[in-house]
Amino acid sequence: MIVSLHAIMPLSRLPRFFTAMARPRNDNFLRALLMEPTDRTPVWLMRQAGRYLPEYNETRRRAGSFLALCKTPSLACEVTLQPLARFDLDAAILFSDILTVPDAMGLGLYFAEGEGPKFERPLREEWAIRALAAPDPWDHLRYVMDAVAEIRRALDNAVPLIGFSGAPFTLACYMVEGGSSHDFRTLKTMLYARPDLLHRILAVTADAVVAYLNAQIEAGAQAVQIFESWGGILSASAFEEFSLAYLRSVLARLIKHHEGERVPAIVFVKGGGQWLEKIAAVGCDAVGLDWTIDLGEARARLTEKTALQGNMDPMALFAPPEVVVREAQRILTSFGPGRTGHVFNLGHGIHQATPPEHVAALIEAVHAFPRESVRA
Amino acid sequence: MIVSLHAIMPLSRLPRFFTAMARPRNDNFLRALLMEPTDRTPVWLMRQAGRYLPEYNETRRRAGSFLALCKTPSLACEVTLQPLARFDLDAAILFSDILTVPDAMGLGLYFAEGEGPKFERPLREEWAIRALAAPDPWDHLRYVMDAVAEIRRALDNAVPLIGFSGAPFTLACYMVEGGSSHDFRTLKTMLYARPDLLHRILAVTADAVVAYLNAQIEAGAQAVQIFESWGGILSASAFEEFSLAYLRSVLARLIKHHEGERVPAIVFVKGGGQWLEKIAAVGCDAVGLDWTIDLGEARARLTEKTALQGNMDPMALFAPPEVVVREAQRILTSFGPGRTGHVFNLGHGIHQATPPEHVAALIEAVHAFPRESVRA
Repeated sequence: MIVSLHAIMPLSRLPRFFTAMARPRNDNFLRALLMEPTDRTPVWLMRQAGRYLPEYNETRRRAGSFLALCKTPSLACEVTLQPLARFDLDAAILFSDILTVPDAMGLGLYFAEGEGPKFERPLREEWAIRALAAPDPWDHLRYVMDAVAEIRRALDNAVPLIGFSGAPFTLACYMVEGGSSHDFRTLKTMLYARPDLLHRILAVTADAVVAYLNAQIEAGAQAVQIFESWGGILSASAFEEFSLAYLRSVLARLIKHHEGERVPAIVFVKGGGQWLEKIAAVGCDAVGLDWTIDLGEARARLTEKTALQGNMDPMALFAPPEVVVREAQRILTSFGPGRTGHVFNLGHGIHQATPPEHVAALIEAVHAFPRESVRA
Repeated sequence: MIVSLHAIMPLSRLPRFFTAMARPRNDNFLRALLMEPTDRTPVWLMRQAGRYLPEYNETRRRAGSFLALCKTPSLACEVTLQPLARFDLDAAILFSDILTVPDAMGLGLYFAEGEGPKFERPLREEWAIRALAAPDPWDHLRYVMDAVAEIRRALDNAVPLIGFSGAPFTLACYMVEGGSSHDFRTLKTMLYARPDLLHRILAVTADAVVAYLNAQIEAGAQAVQIFESWGGILSASAFEEFSLAYLRSVLARLIKHHEGERVPAIVFVKGGGQWLEKIAAVGCDAVGLDWTIDLGEARARLTEKTALQGNMDPMALFAPPEVVVREAQRILTSFGPGRTGHVFNLGHGIHQATPPEHVAALIEAVHAFPRESVRA
């Protein structure tokens, strides 16, 4: 499918981002997502490059700020690789932030110390919403594509690289609220009182997410994950109208093959346990699960076409290693034997105070878990 | 069933708390909970006596503090009745706080301005957990029973009075964390690392909740609601072990009849949409639903024995009245025609900035909704 790449990306960009056409040497992660047999249950952890690692904190200090870290490809590459140097992880994930897209749209992302992400110019006025446009990722988010390419070169095909984006609804939550929120009152007021405005934001943001993820794929991302972190704040009918509809629209337009390989897509909806069947139907290869749902039950509810990723409670990592191991085994047992299609992960990002030795015990336990279905 | 009352409560208390044996003149709320036909869909709102009402803020200012308001029966009675003077509500709910029980256990409840509830002495040390005991509600929570009795007298059987308590797990969350929490790390660490300690807290707290709710029933509460506000933070297996098991234990020990009438029990688990069948099976008459689940789907999943309460998004009340009305009608339509067993409510407590006129429009719309099943 190199043809589609030519069609979308000017030829002049090709040499820089061209990477070897080959599956990674450890391709268990990609195989599990595509429901192919694996050697072992692959594992990676959401936010695996982060503050629980002293080496990350050291690099971040050198960078000066979290945003500088995201925007400097060599440093983003450095922290992306740090957890892989420590642990036998089956995938790397691009180090970045889900709010780079609204930042590129001109909302002015900043991080107030101890307060999480904020926007200088939240999106609330009708004129600003009408003026919103999807940025060209090769112009305004070039630093992300540069990081992806640099990480791919550094990985040298050892394990696959995951690209990612926030889902349109989750990005809209931050854009309208101007940051995180306890009750999402501003967003919800718009949703109920002026749904037309929210739909306009979502349509533009969906276009931006498509362009952003496709650019990451062209730059070398071998799988993508879409984070719908705030899907769980919606009523069932609003979830259909404001989240699922745009996930479907994004998935339909993603590049499906690149470098001669399928590029699987994972959709993670925090708080989406009630809606698994609907999430699986948006056109993704895998559904990411938070820790509230029983993995075996999720397996039973979905068809054999959809892989599952998850779903240990990140807080379980604060227990002693033997408890961590037991909890991992309970989850692996719940998935059931003799089957592929499971990528082990946490049900949410790893907590910054997590002891790294507990993470080591977890990764080892997942890989050591006996499985009847070994690769032929 | 006055016999059981005699057995539990010293005779000297009887005259004070003795109330007329009769169903309220408007008993639609109780009838819906018991799956009996009703004149109209009954409605009340979680936190209906609260800061969105100017008259509440006035009484609270007079009381000096939120806790003084809770602990002064005449003032608690006054604010309980305020929303009923404004709106045609089908039930009153005792004005109190779910943390009165841990306060009576000696943890020292206080409210830091703008920070929510806190405990002076969070429950973390093994010796303190071993020393924890269930308080006698007639001694340590007498102010609550006095408020219940006073509200019953003031209501004069117009509508039923709902008593309530936090569920053991939700109370334990606050007790161990010392307040609300973003990630419940302290509680979760105990849950995974020292489940024996958490079980000890839950067992004592379940005893306390049973005594507390039974005392409220004896003082005049005609239905009870148990709030499992934090159930949704648990994995499916932890929910079974640390929440459901104790809900079951509480429900099994609640007084089922009083004043010659059934006293229905409602269990509300925020974030419990995935587990409705399990919640319905703990022995309650009704399941309270947050706004994330489709009411019609909930109806289809549960047997005809369980009533449902809910479930409009409280944030929908920020939309103009015509949108509020449409949203209420959508929910009533989703429940389906020709059936009883629905108490309309919000899916969570009403927000303090809600315009009271929107609440009026909501109540009216619920009552005006045409239903094929009118009382015979």
